[in-house]
Formats: sequence, structure tokens, C-alpha cells
Amino acid sequence: MAPDRILTADEIAKHNSRQSCWVVIDGHAYDVTDFLDQHPGGSAIILRYAGKDATEEYSPVHSPGTIEKELPKDKHLGQVDLMTFLSIRKASKSPLTNATPSGPLPIEMCVNLHDISLAAQKVLPERAWTYYASASEDLHSHRRNLHDWDRILFRPRVLKNVKHVNMHRKILGFESSLPFFIAPAAMAGLGHPDGERCLVRGAKKFNIPYFVSDGSSVSHEDLAQELEREGYGGVLFYQLYAKKKKDLTIQRIHRARQLGYKALIITVDTAVMGIREEDDRYRMRQAFERGEKYIPLCGLAPLTKDDDWVLRGVHNAALDWNDLKWVKEAWGNTGPISIKGILTTEDAKIACEMGFQSIYLSNHGGRQIDSGPSGLRALLEIRRFYPDVFDKCEVLLDGGVRRSRDILKALCLGATGVGLGRPFLYALSAYGTEGVLKVIQILSDELEISMRLLGVTSLDELRPHMVNKLDLDNSIMREIPGFKNSTSKL
Amino acid sequence: MAPDRILTADEIAKHNSRQSCWVVIDGHAYDVTDFLDQHPGGSAIILRYAGKDATEEYSPVHSPGTIEKELPKDKHLGQVDLMTFLSIRKASKSPLTNATPSGPLPIEMCVNLHDISLAAQKVLPERAWTYYASASEDLHSHRRNLHDWDRILFRPRVLKNVKHVNMHRKILGFESSLPFFIAPAAMAGLGHPDGERCLVRGAKKFNIPYFVSDGSSVSHEDLAQELEREGYGGVLFYQLYAKKKKDLTIQRIHRARQLGYKALIITVDTAVMGIREEDDRYRMRQAFERGEKYIPLCGLAPLTKDDDWVLRGVHNAALDWNDLKWVKEAWGNTGPISIKGILTTEDAKIACEMGFQSIYLSNHGGRQIDSGPSGLRALLEIRRFYPDVFDKCEVLLDGGVRRSRDILKALCLGATGVGLGRPFLYALSAYGTEGVLKVIQILSDELEISMRLLGVTSLDELRPHMVNKLDLDNSIMREIPGFKNSTSKL
Amino acid sequence: MAPDRILTADEIAKHNSRQSCWVVIDGHAYDVTDFLDQHPGGSAIILRYAGKDATEEYSPVHSPGTIEKELPKDKHLGQVDLMTFLSIRKASKSPLTNATPSGPLPIEMCVNLHDISLAAQKVLPERAWTYYASASEDLHSHRRNLHDWDRILFRPRVLKNVKHVNMHRKILGFESSLPFFIAPAAMAGLGHPDGERCLVRGAKKFNIPYFVSDGSSVSHEDLAQELEREGYGGVLFYQLYAKKKKDLTIQRIHRARQLGYKALIITVDTAVMGIREEDDRYRMRQAFERGEKYIPLCGLAPLTKDDDWVLRGVHNAALDWNDLKWVKEAWGNTGPISIKGILTTEDAKIACEMGFQSIYLSNHGGRQIDSGPSGLRALLEIRRFYPDVFDKCEVLLDGGVRRSRDILKALCLGATGVGLGRPFLYALSAYGTEGVLKVIQILSDELEISMRLLGVTSLDELRPHMVNKLDLDNSIMREIPGFKNSTSKL
Amino acid sequence: MAPDRILTADEIAKHNSRQSCWVVIDGHAYDVTDFLDQHPGGSAIILRYAGKDATEEYSPVHSPGTIEKELPKDKHLGQVDLMTFLSIRKASKSPLTNATPSGPLPIEMCVNLHDISLAAQKVLPERAWTYYASASEDLHSHRRNLHDWDRILFRPRVLKNVKHVNMHRKILGFESSLPFFIAPAAMAGLGHPDGERCLVRGAKKFNIPYFVSDGSSVSHEDLAQELEREGYGGVLFYQLYAKKKKDLTIQRIHRARQLGYKALIITVDTAVMGIREEDDRYRMRQAFERGEKYIPLCGLAPLTKDDDWVLRGVHNAALDWNDLKWVKEAWGNTGPISIKGILTTEDAKIACEMGFQSIYLSNHGGRQIDSGPSGLRALLEIRRFYPDVFDKCEVLLDGGVRRSRDILKALCLGATGVGLGRPFLYALSAYGTEGVLKVIQILSDELEISMRLLGVTSLDELRPHMVNKLDLDNSIMREIPGFKNSTSKL
Repeated sequence: MAPDRILTADEIAKHNSRQSCWVVIDGHAYDVTDFLDQHPGGSAIILRYAGKDATEEYSPVHSPGTIEKELPKDKHLGQVDLMTFLSIRKASKSPLTNATPSGPLPIEMCVNLHDISLAAQKVLPERAWTYYASASEDLHSHRRNLHDWDRILFRPRVLKNVKHVNMHRKILGFESSLPFFIAPAAMAGLGHPDGERCLVRGAKKFNIPYFVSDGSSVSHEDLAQELEREGYGGVLFYQLYAKKKKDLTIQRIHRARQLGYKALIITVDTAVMGIREEDDRYRMRQAFERGEKYIPLCGLAPLTKDDDWVLRGVHNAALDWNDLKWVKEAWGNTGPISIKGILTTEDAKIACEMGFQSIYLSNHGGRQIDSGPSGLRALLEIRRFYPDVFDKCEVLLDGGVRRSRDILKALCLGATGVGLGRPFLYALSAYGTEGVLKVIQILSDELEISMRLLGVTSLDELRPHMVNKLDLDNSIMREIPGFKNSTSKL
Repeated sequence: MAPDRILTADEIAKHNSRQSCWVVIDGHAYDVTDFLDQHPGGSAIILRYAGKDATEEYSPVHSPGTIEKELPKDKHLGQVDLMTFLSIRKASKSPLTNATPSGPLPIEMCVNLHDISLAAQKVLPERAWTYYASASEDLHSHRRNLHDWDRILFRPRVLKNVKHVNMHRKILGFESSLPFFIAPAAMAGLGHPDGERCLVRGAKKFNIPYFVSDGSSVSHEDLAQELEREGYGGVLFYQLYAKKKKDLTIQRIHRARQLGYKALIITVDTAVMGIREEDDRYRMRQAFERGEKYIPLCGLAPLTKDDDWVLRGVHNAALDWNDLKWVKEAWGNTGPISIKGILTTEDAKIACEMGFQSIYLSNHGGRQIDSGPSGLRALLEIRRFYPDVFDKCEVLLDGGVRRSRDILKALCLGATGVGLGRPFLYALSAYGTEGVLKVIQILSDELEISMRLLGVTSLDELRPHMVNKLDLDNSIMREIPGFKNSTSKL
Repeated sequence: MAPDRILTADEIAKHNSRQSCWVVIDGHAYDVTDFLDQHPGGSAIILRYAGKDATEEYSPVHSPGTIEKELPKDKHLGQVDLMTFLSIRKASKSPLTNATPSGPLPIEMCVNLHDISLAAQKVLPERAWTYYASASEDLHSHRRNLHDWDRILFRPRVLKNVKHVNMHRKILGFESSLPFFIAPAAMAGLGHPDGERCLVRGAKKFNIPYFVSDGSSVSHEDLAQELEREGYGGVLFYQLYAKKKKDLTIQRIHRARQLGYKALIITVDTAVMGIREEDDRYRMRQAFERGEKYIPLCGLAPLTKDDDWVLRGVHNAALDWNDLKWVKEAWGNTGPISIKGILTTEDAKIACEMGFQSIYLSNHGGRQIDSGPSGLRALLEIRRFYPDVFDKCEVLLDGGVRRSRDILKALCLGATGVGLGRPFLYALSAYGTEGVLKVIQILSDELEISMRLLGVTSLDELRPHMVNKLDLDNSIMREIPGFKNSTSKL
Repeated sequence: MAPDRILTADEIAKHNSRQSCWVVIDGHAYDVTDFLDQHPGGSAIILRYAGKDATEEYSPVHSPGTIEKELPKDKHLGQVDLMTFLSIRKASKSPLTNATPSGPLPIEMCVNLHDISLAAQKVLPERAWTYYASASEDLHSHRRNLHDWDRILFRPRVLKNVKHVNMHRKILGFESSLPFFIAPAAMAGLGHPDGERCLVRGAKKFNIPYFVSDGSSVSHEDLAQELEREGYGGVLFYQLYAKKKKDLTIQRIHRARQLGYKALIITVDTAVMGIREEDDRYRMRQAFERGEKYIPLCGLAPLTKDDDWVLRGVHNAALDWNDLKWVKEAWGNTGPISIKGILTTEDAKIACEMGFQSIYLSNHGGRQIDSGPSGLRALLEIRRFYPDVFDKCEVLLDGGVRRSRDILKALCLGATGVGLGRPFLYALSAYGTEGVLKVIQILSDELEISMRLLGVTSLDELRPHMVNKLDLDNSIMREIPGFKNSTSKL
């Protein structure tokens, strides 16, 4: 190329790939295609500036004249007309400039799940935000969910070949590309008109399980159909609340089978609803404004009241382990059953011995009893007193998971899969289906990086000694009076 | 009904009960009376909108057309005149709109005891608030009271049939509908002209014990009469401060017997009053403004002063265990005696061995020695070193209880009943008798829900292994030098 | 007295004593002289209103008509002219009204040592406040001093006869009315022109020891003379910094003997001065403003500098245990010697075995090494590994003491006396001698109350089991590698 | 000197040294040259006022007339003309007065490393600050680095002769005047045009090792030359990131040998780069503004993407322990090799057994896996389970070191040398080479003082029992499942 030619931004912009990579530095253009793999700092950083002016990135980290020296003369392309760069930049002026400061972050700018949550808080109407975000009483259970993860530390190994990482895992017998799933959470319709459809789309695209809530805003038929559309993977499981009437419950189970849901998740921690005060406050204020009387849905009739028409919660407080026999029968051999809401060793043992395929440790997002253990603490307790559980049952868990490192920790300690609820609701509220994809993408990226930094290439390699759980383990009881089991595993 | 009729809000509003329940959705009315029990989401949520427009609640959580599909055609009542709804709403405009923002929350809007406390802080004159809320020195004991409860976690069991819940308990031999009582607290008259009468009314209506303070604003005769009025239950116990003169003390005991108080509570932690600095500050500022000298009531004469007319506190610093013999004698067989203010194993043992029916663990609301244990810590210590206590004595306790889950925890660990003091004073200050009823109602609702979520149907089922007390237990001494007892119970 | 007479404020004001006590309630005057000892609420509260209008205090806590009923008719003195009360109140208008809000609290309004500290912060020039308040590096040692006390809880006993309380204690062989002393602290002259004289006066009036600092602003002669003036008690001890020259040190010791100082305290934790950054910052800013170069006094000459005229701190870095032999000799039999600044078991043992009468546990107010233990932690360590110390040596201690309950805790754990430094400097800075008296008075009152509430009448009764030290004890090493001693005492 | 002469500031100012030292007090001049060594408060404080007016310093801490009494009459020089002092002060008016409040602190005013960091934050462009200061994900690892040090307490000994302090130490076989070094940190050019040259100069002047980063902004040749210039000491080590191509890596190692780098540090904790979100956010915002797409450098290609041109990080994820064999071979006998980034006992053992001379405990400034241990925790773990390490390998460590007391603690626990990274980058950013010198000087001063206050005169005396590590040690696992080693050392 004639060295006296003045190159323009347009010409340079065409060479923006690994096949032909030009960059501009200090007003001169260079062809660095062949140099990409020799760059000590890696090729990625150069490729980011392929076809562009890299001066800003280059100059503070290189001695003057470095490129002149390192690059053969024939790769020196000559001077560029810098004015032409300015006009390009102007034309592609970003939407951010016009964004109002109060709006949510553009989705491209979200780097983690906290960003997604903040965006949702900005766009959601008060009612929906309150319903999604609230938890019971003084939020002790909820906060414990969020913070318990940080009390477990990794013990990262070095110098393992971690070039290829395998993040696949079987959850309830179904292949999943990632070791986490969309946990059951009701009323996605409050956040987005497409409601739970967004979640089905995410599960398909990334091939992970979606545990559809019994209280889905979109009908279970519609969600089953959404899964059938063109697309890649995913699997739907059905989360069930037992109704007050046995018939109605069985009817639901049969319908779920017919619609092709592959596993049944029975939630057992909702004998009554917990006291979610922010939610109550919102409804009270509404009622009060209208001059109406509000009786909390989750509350109870006054003891001294003689009329009994206000029912005490929507769920079946009379359900017991015996009822699970007919639930099991109704579901038949359709697929595995997981018991969701278990928090004690005693209940874990009963579920295992009754032959259920899975237990699901959860405190319902901190929305039921306040002052209860997190799913993670339950995992530690059960590990200690009933280690056989891992041979007999698949252990799932949720609660406060906001990072893939949390997922990794749970897997090290024996969990098969980990669920996230609120983050997905926030994502669809702020960004619809795109938001759901973003959440899974972020978690996938985090997971791949964390696995490498931990020194493992497959989830099957994860073992308890890869974490230091001592700090949290010290909060777990030393002995459960009255509980007898074989050996304990510390 | 003719499908072409246009229904009005007035007509629909009549169908607002379980017997006849109409709702409006998207401008159409429906008769859902028969559907109530089939609704997967429960009937309560529908009944809340009985006779009203439910569109706002309905539409985000259902697919369009759901009700059309699910409900038989003959239950479709036709279109409504939405304008008529607007006028109704206007007419019933709420008082909240006119409420000044600085006023207390309307009582209907209080969802927990913190709300009640905030309301009291808004309405009480500084003097009364300060007297009620203050505690000793740096408030360490007071804060420990409030926070220790959160260091005990539940171990909630699932799939127990918890349809019917029994919250009855005998306290000092008297049936109570609930396992808590109104703890003795002086000077309710500072907060409301009816003073302690409000507390008697609450105790009657909900059938719980009220431990009347020796320092009641309303005379003990009047309170005894208040209990006699028409009404349901309740029982009064008498809390006694031993006076400096034995005669005066005996005279008080005799009077309490005559007035029909059923049990005697002797407070033994007030050899002198603790240093409640906020209270002192208030009085000092008042005195200073008037140009007067203020000598703290709870304080002491200067060591170097020779006049001795300022007495060192109102209580009897000379009282000892021997004095309790004549106290016991003066009370005779009228009813049980409880020793209030015990915080150590040693004193618990003495009280038990002297044959008192009950010990009452309390640090006096954090108003006496600062840096002392909470009643809850005392309970843990005594459990460990003197487990026989539960066979010999009834254990009561107070301090920092603001939630029924706190009560449940204490009961799991062996307490028979739990007292609340400040919350009742705050309630009557802000809302009079209604406030007292509200406090009991909230606690009753919380208790019923928490029992179900814990998996118990009767207070008799509560056991230590239902809580994880390890974190707090780790703060209890491992050994008490010089104290000998049988076996320890961890 | 004629019942139709209208009494005036002047007349009533004369009856303001236990001998003749009148009060006004609801516009009527009553003679309550004989009733004083029968008042269930104690006489103190009535005496406060002797000769005054008590309506404001009385009415919220009594049923209407109580006084009419309880008091014999002949004690009803008749109506009062309320206007006359208003004029009295006006006349005695308080200085507080004219006080500027930025000024320090009037001394009468100070209820605890925190108030005194705040007052000092308001009146002190920056330089003095900075010098007094600063501590080394990141203030970890300083903060630990303040907070460690709260990690020890009392185990208060009830129903001990605590009418008479004896707070006397022998400190270094000298009777003290109270178990604390004024710890050595230099440069009181920065805070008040009378400097250390204020401290001598306080020590005299309350009969406690004052450990005069080697770096006193007022000459040691003058302080010795101040003690000789008319007045009650007190004793002066001499705190010594060993100088670089042995002669100078011996000369100082001889002078202290001649001046009548009764004990010698040798500070051994100042091989160099700690890095008190706030102090340095202040001086740097001053120097910088003047265009001068500032080399930190506590700092060191740069390693690379060849001139050596800047000495590295004022103290003798070469001092060792052998030097203490000639120190001991120079002091002779004048009185006991205490070694101040010991923080380890090893050093405690050496000091004991060398025959010194006392060790003084202190981290120099957090002004020397940062990240060191508090005196209290040192006490716990030494208790554990070298329990013989209490038989051989008197243990003194300081650091972060702001409440008499702190003193009580130290005494329970074996200390003989406890020192306070900064609080006395703050007191004299804000209020001169009056401030010093106030500090001692507050501590004395607190101590008397706390002893009663703990259930002891004499300091000799204090024992380790009266506190729960487990929480802090868990931070003390389990073993000291290389240290051998007999039995450990937990 | 004639007593009636009026001295001027100019005359007095000449006597400003130890050889002739005059000071002014209360308008009179005194010759205190001979008195310097007799001053109880030390000579330093006087010398600071040599040739100046010392009244402000003198008067609050001395009784009036003290100097008149103590100093022989012939040293009284007479009155001074105070007006002449005023004019001097005016002339030397400080630059601080003109400094804008938003600028960085003048370097003379920096008293610790926090000041340096604040100054850097003020002057650095956002990009550079973000790059230097950011750490991974939620900053848990980073914060743990900073705070873990405070969980170890000193056990300071007294009365050791600590006049002469020796701070020398051999690091990787090379004499260093101080026991710390400049840790490898890339891209110093972002902070200052001289970039890493400033660091070489600091290392030379104070004779400490500088671990040059593989990603240095200034070429490694230039840095080697910088070391060769006139000047005192220092040594350069080479920190290596293994490249994706073995050839390129070997080529780098050979070049480092040729350039005279004395030791090789291989970083092994960067299989991929950690997720530094603040850094990503900055770049995203930039890209977004330009309307460009940004793919995080540290991130990964989306799983669902089929093009693979975006490389996953710049480092070699495939590197394993076997590769270290050819690394070792390439380096030959040039000098020792240290393996940087080890955090577990298992890896420490492998490195030792492979015959490497050193392990370097580091979590990469909290920039790699979040939720990992700090280097300090790793040290405690390895001490416990593999105490042989100290016989076989030299242990280096970095992470969160901001004070020389941190360094001392690490050395007590067995580390040979301690690295600091960010503080040096901040220093050169704010103040260039002067800043680097200042950091070393501050650390040197702190170290000398802390050693004396700890009671040691040489780093060789440091032992584990000089610290109480119990609190942090309680967070270290009790057992590593599967790891077998000889005796454990607690």
C-alpha cells in the first residue's frame, strides 16, 4: 500500500476481524492480523479495537515506539485522517445519551444479577415489586438466605488443565446444560404481559429445567405449548400446592401429566402462608384509601369473632405424610417427585425412606416462617446427621442464590441442582424474555470462570474439601436430641 | 338474568357474602358463589372482592378469558355500568386522605408491634415516652433483650396435620387462651387517662393473665372492679415491690388478697433503681429550666455530703431471702407465688428449694444492671446447670419479646409463659383499649401461623430440639465455679 | 389553719424539708410531712416537690381523689393562689435559656462520662483535643479498649441484703475510698490553666490515689504542696519514664521520694512513642502553613539520611529488666513499685519473680503498638496461664474504662484497682476542678448502684463467677508455646 | 551578651542546630544548647523550635517560671523584637494556602498509606483508578484481604533492649534492607508517564526487591537499564504469565535471564481472568456511548454463540504442573523460582516436592475467584497441615498489606517476605518516584517502631507465640479430607 495515502475511518473499519485486523495508533494504521497470536497481552484486547482507533488503550501500557519496533515495516499502513473517525463516532451516538437517568440500565450494561434487580425495582409498579420482593415478618430468614453463602470459602487449586469446562448436569433425571434451574415462583404476569412464557423461552434456549409454579399467571397449557414451539431444549416440571379438596389436587396432577410436565414438585411448607408484611401494608393502604376493611390474606380470623367465613390461608393445613401416598399414586410413573420445603434432617429422612426421588431444601425465599434456617444450613445439617441422603435421594436447594459461586458451593456440598426464583421474575419484569436470557448468560459465564479458578473442569469433580465451610458449620447443631442415624459426615 | 341488562354498583354490592358472591371483571359481572370452593387460589381472595370490581387483582394473574371458560354461562351476569363504581369509591373516601402525615398510623394499618411502638412515640409527650422507653446506662441489657431472640432458629417440620391449633396454656395454675401475659409495668396513666383499665379490658376479652404493677396509676381496687364487670375471662395477679417497712409490705399483700388477686409476683431485682439516663436527663432539663437543683431519683447522695434526707431509691435494699418467709406467710394459701428478676442458676435453685411455685426470669426490661444477661440467656444457663427446675417450678420470662415467634422459642426451651411490658404501654398510649386488643390479636395471629409453620398443633408438643440454640448457647458459661448440681441438659 | 385562706407560693416554699413538707396539687396545698414514710412510691419523689406545685408529677400516676382519701382532713391546707407560682418561676429563670447551643452542657446536666467527653471536645482547642484523644495508627487498640468491657456480662444475684455498701479498697497499700484511681496522663495544662492541680484536688476530696505523670504540666513540687493544703485525703504516686541517661533517671526518683510520693510506677511500654497520626497531622498542618518542615516526633529519621540529630523518640529504647534493679535500689524502701505496661503472661511472671509489688496492665490508652491486647485481655490471659500472680503481686489495670460496671468486672477478675486517664483530662478541660469532682461522683454513684444490683456489699466479695467472661475468653490463646507454668485457672 | 539588647528573628534563626540552639519563650530568648540532653521531655521537641518562637508549645506544659529557674542566668539572652517574627512567618507563607481543596494532599502531609491511596483517587483518571482499584465480583476476597490482618493481635514484650533494630532480610536469596517487596502489578503507565521506572528507583534507593510484572508498561529492557544507572541497591525479579504458546513463554523466560532478572515468579492463579465488574462497567459505558458492542475481556463467549473468535481471557487455561518442568528447565540455574497464587496446603506441598525454592501465597489482590481465602489464611492453613513447608521452601505472601504491623504478623507466622502492590501504583500515580520513596519510608518507620514496641531487635527473633492468631485460626478448617501429612503445628 502506498505509504503516502491517507486512510479514512471507513476503509479501516472493514478490517475488523481475525481474518483481517487493522488498528489505528497515534494517527497511523497498522495491519496486526499476523501479530494477533504473538501479542503478549493476548489477541482479545486487540480484536476489540479491530477496525478502530486503539490509541487510548495502547499508549499508557506500552513504551513509545513499541509497535514500530515489533511490527514488520510492511504492516505499517500509513497515516489516517482522524477527522473521519470523529464523524463516525458522532453518527453512532448511543441511546444512553437520551436515556433518562431514572430509567433502568440498558440491558447491555447489566453485569450481574444485582443490576437486574435494581432495574426491576425501577420499572415495576409498587404492587408487583412488593409482592415479589417481600418476605416474612422481620426478614431474618430472607437475609440469612442472602448472606449465608458468604460464610463458605473456596479452596481454589492451581495448575490444573482447565481449558475445557463441562457444565452439564442431570437434574431429576433430565439433562441440563447448566446445574441450575428456574425455581417455581407465582404470578409472573405482574411483571410482564408475557408472564411465564418468558421463562419457558429462557429454559429452552439454554436447555435448563423450569419448575412451573402451580400459581402461574399464564395457563399451564399455554406454557406446555410454548415449549413445543421451534427451539432447542429445556424441560418443564410441575410445582404443586395441595388444595383443600383431595379431588381438586388429583385433578391438577392428572392435568400436569397430560400436559407433559416431566417431574412433580410438591411444596410442603405452606400449611398457611407466612406473614409478608410489606405485601399486607400495600393492600391495607389500598383498602384504607377506598374506605374498605382489609383482612390480611395470610392472617387469621380474630379468636373472638364468631363468624368463620374468612378462611385461614389458601393452602391445605391438614396435609400430612400419608397424603403423599395418594399424590404419588396420582402421578404414577410419569417421572420423579421432589418434596420441596424440607429444612430438617428428620423430614429429609422420612422423604427418603418413603421412596421419593428427591428432596428440595428451601425456606420459600424467606416468605414462610421467619427465623428459620436457609436451605444451605439445612444442607449442612443433613450432611452431618444423615449422610446417606446423597445415596438415596437427589438434593435440590434454593434461597438467596445470586452468583454462580453460590451454586458451586452448594454442589461441592452435595446438591445436584440449585434454583433461583426472584432474579428471574426481576429479569422478565425489567427486560422480558431478553432479561431471562441475560440472567442465564451471566450465571453461565460466572460459572465457567469460577470453575476454572477453582481448578475443576467438570461438575462431577466437585467435593466437600474444595470449600471451607467451618464458619457456617459452627452454627449447625452438634446433636439432634431423639434423632438416631448411622455415621455423621463432617 | 336478562343478559342485556346493565348492572349498577349498588346492585352488585349487595352480593358480598359467601351466600351470594358477585364480582366484576373487565366490565362484566359474574356470580361466583358456587365457584368459591373450586378456586385454585382459595376462596378468601375472591371473597375480598365480593360485591366489587376485582379486575385489578384478577387480570395480571390469569390468562385472558379464563373466567369465561371456567364459569358456566348461567353465572355470567352481564355488563356493568362502571361509572356507578366511581361514585361509590368517591363517597367512601378514606380518613387517611385527611390525616396529617405526622399523626400516628390508623390502628387498622398496624401490622406488627413495631408499628404500635412508632405510633406511641408520635403521640406521647416527651416525659411519658422517655419514662417508658428508657433503660439503664448504655442500653446494653436492653438491646441484648431485643436481639437475643434472633440468635435462636427454628427447625420447622413439614407435613404434620396442623389444621386445628390449640394455643391454650395454664399460667400459674390459671387457664389462659394464649401463652403470654401482660407483664407488670408501672404508670400506665402517663400514656392514657384510662391507664391500667385498658389492660384489664384486654386481659378479659382475650382471657389472658394481667400482672398488675404495684405502681399502677389506677388504684388496685378499681382494677379489681374493672375485671368484675360483664365480660369473658382474664385473671389478675399482683406484682409487689417490698417496701422499706415490713408492716407496709404486709398490709399491701393483705389488701391484694382481699381484692381477689390470684397470684403474687415478688420483684427482687430492685434493691435500688437502675440508672435510666434518658429519664434523668429529661427531669434535669426541666429542673434546670426552672432554676432548680435536681438530684436523680435513682441516684445517690454524694459520698461527701453530710445531710442524708435524700433517700437512695424507693425500694428496700435490705430485703433478703429470709424476708420472703414472712412474705409467703402473709400471702398464705391464696395462690401461687413467683419470684421475679432471677437471672442466675444459683438463685433459681434457692427459689425452687424454698418451695416457691414459680421463678420469673427478667432483667426488668434492661432498666436495672446494665451488662446483665437477658431472661432468655438466663433460661439457657439454668437449663444447662439446673435442669430439675422444670420439674419443680414454673418458669416465666420476659424481655424484648416483640413477636410470637419469640414466645414459641421460649416455650420450646421450657418456659411456661412469656410476658410483654412496653408493647402494652405503647398500645394504650396510642390507641387506648383498642390498642391493647390489637396487640393481643396480632400476637395471637402470629402465634397460630408460626405454630402451623413449625409443625405443631398444641403448645404441649414444643420441645428443645425444635430450635437450634447453638449460637446463643455458645455464650453461656461452661461451668459455674462453686455450683454443684446433678446432670446438665444441653 | 383557716380553710378559707388563700395560700401563696412564698408561704408554701418555706415548707420544703423533711421536717415540714407541703405540696400543691390541683390548686390545693397539703401538709404531707407525716405521710412521707407511708408513701408507697417513697419519700424522695415527694421531697423533690417539697414547697412546690407537684400537680404535673402527681396527676398522671394517681387516680383522681387519691390524696383527698389518703390524707387526714387536718392536713388539707386549702386553696393556693396559682398566680404567685408563676412569678416565682419567672424570677428563677435558668441560665440554660441564655446558653448558646454550641457551648458545653452545664455541668449539672452531665449524667455520665460520655457527656464530659463531649463537653471537652466542644471547649478544647484543636491541638489539645487532638493530643488527648488521639491514639496510634488505625485505632484498633484504642477501640478494643472501649469495647472489650461489653463482652463480659454480669451474673447478678438477688435478695442479698445490700443496704450498706462498702467501696473502700487498699491500692498499693494505701486506703482508697473507691477502687479506682487517676491514671498517669501528661500535659493537663493543655486543657486548663490549673492543670494537674485539679486532679490533686479531686483525689483529696474523694480520697483516692492520683498517679502523677512524669510529664506533668505543673511541677511535681507544686502538686505535692497542693496535697498538703487543708483537706481530707488522697495520695500521690509517681509515674516515671526512664530517661536516656541513668543519672537523670535516678535524680528523678530521688526527687519523687523527697517530695513524698508514696509509690513508684515505672512505665515500660515506651521504648519509642507510638504513631499517633492525628497528632502528627495537626502538627504537620501547622508546620506546613508556616512553610516549615515537620519531622514527626514519634517517627524516625529516614534510613537513608546521614545526619542523626533527630532523636528517635524521647524515651529510653535501651532499658531492660536489669535496669530495673538500680531503679529499685534508687527508690529503696520508700514504698511499693508497680510495673506499668505489661500485656503478656511472660512479662507478668518476670515482674513477679523479681519481687515487684505490682504489675499494671495497660496498652497506654491505645497509644503505643496498634493491634495489641487491651489491659482486660491481658488480665484474662494472665489469669489463665499464671494464676499465681494474684498471690504474689497486686494487679492494676486501665484502658477504656468509662463506667463503674467496667471497674467491677475487672475487680471480679482479680484486679485490685482500675485507672482512668482521658476522662479526667476531659473533665478538667471542660469544667476545671468541678469536672474532676463530677467524674468521681458519677463513678461513685454508679459503683454503689451496680454493687447493689450485683448483690454484693463489699468489694472483697467479688469473685470470677460473678461475671460471664466466656465470650472474651474465647479470644485468648489456648496455649503459649514455650511458656511453662503450674495450673491454669479458667 | 548584653542583656539590654533587643534580638531579632534573623539573629535567632541562625542558632537552629544541635551545635547552637536558641529558642524564644514569652518574648525572651534563651540558649538551650547545653540543656538539650537534660530536658526531661527529650531534645527532639526543643530542636524542632531551634531558632524559633517556642512559646505556643512551651507554655501549656510548664509551670510559669520553669525555664527561668532551670536555666543558668548566663543562658538568658534577653528580650526579642516579636514584630520581626511576624514578618518572617508571612514571607514563608505556605503553598497549602493556595492549594485547591480538591487536589491531593501535599506529599509531606501523608502520614500513612491510606493518605497515598486517597491522593491517587483524586488525581487518577477514572479508567486508571478503576483498573487499579477494582477486584472481582462482590469484593469479598478483596475485603477479606484488608480485614484479616486485624484479627491477629500482637503479644508485645517489654523491657528488652531495643535500641538497635535490624530490619534486613534475605528474600529469595538476595539481601534486602527491609522484609517487604514491590509486588508484581501491571500497567503502571496508566498512573504516571514514567510508569514502572518509578518503582525501580524506589527499589534501588531503599535496596528492596522489585518483582517486575510481565505486563509492565515500560519495557523490561528499559527497567533493567534503569537499575544499572548510578545508585545504591535493589534487585529485579521477573513475574511471568505463561502464554498460550509454549515457545513464546520460553522466549520470555530466556529474555528475562539475559536482561539479568535474578529470580522467576510464575503466576499460576490466572487460568482465566476474574470478573472485575467495575472495570467492565467502565469499558461498557465507554463502548455504549460510542454505540459499540462490548464483550467483557474477562468474560466468555455466550454458550449459544457459534463463532469462537473471542478468546476466553489472555492466559493459558491449559497450564498444569507438568508444564512447570519445562519452565524450570528454561530458567535453568539462573536463580530461584517462586510459584505465585498458591492458596491451599495441597498445592503448597506439590510445589515444595517439585523442588521449587519458594511458594507465594496470594489471591491476586482479590481480583480472581471471589470468596477465596486471603494469603494470610492460606498461611495459617499451611502452617497447620504442612508445617514442613518452612524447612523446604521460602514462603512469600501478599494481599491487603497496608501497615508494617501486617508485615510483622506475617513474619511471625513464618513468611520470609511480604509484597505490596496497589499502594505502590497509587504512590506513583499521585507523586511519581517521590511517592514510591514515601511509601517505603513510611513502612520502614512503622516497622522500626513496631519492632521496638513488640520487643524485638531483629526479624530473626520473630516467632508464632508473639501473636495471638486464635480468632482467625478458628476460621481455618480442622481437617482436610483426603490430605495426609505428618504432624500439625497449631
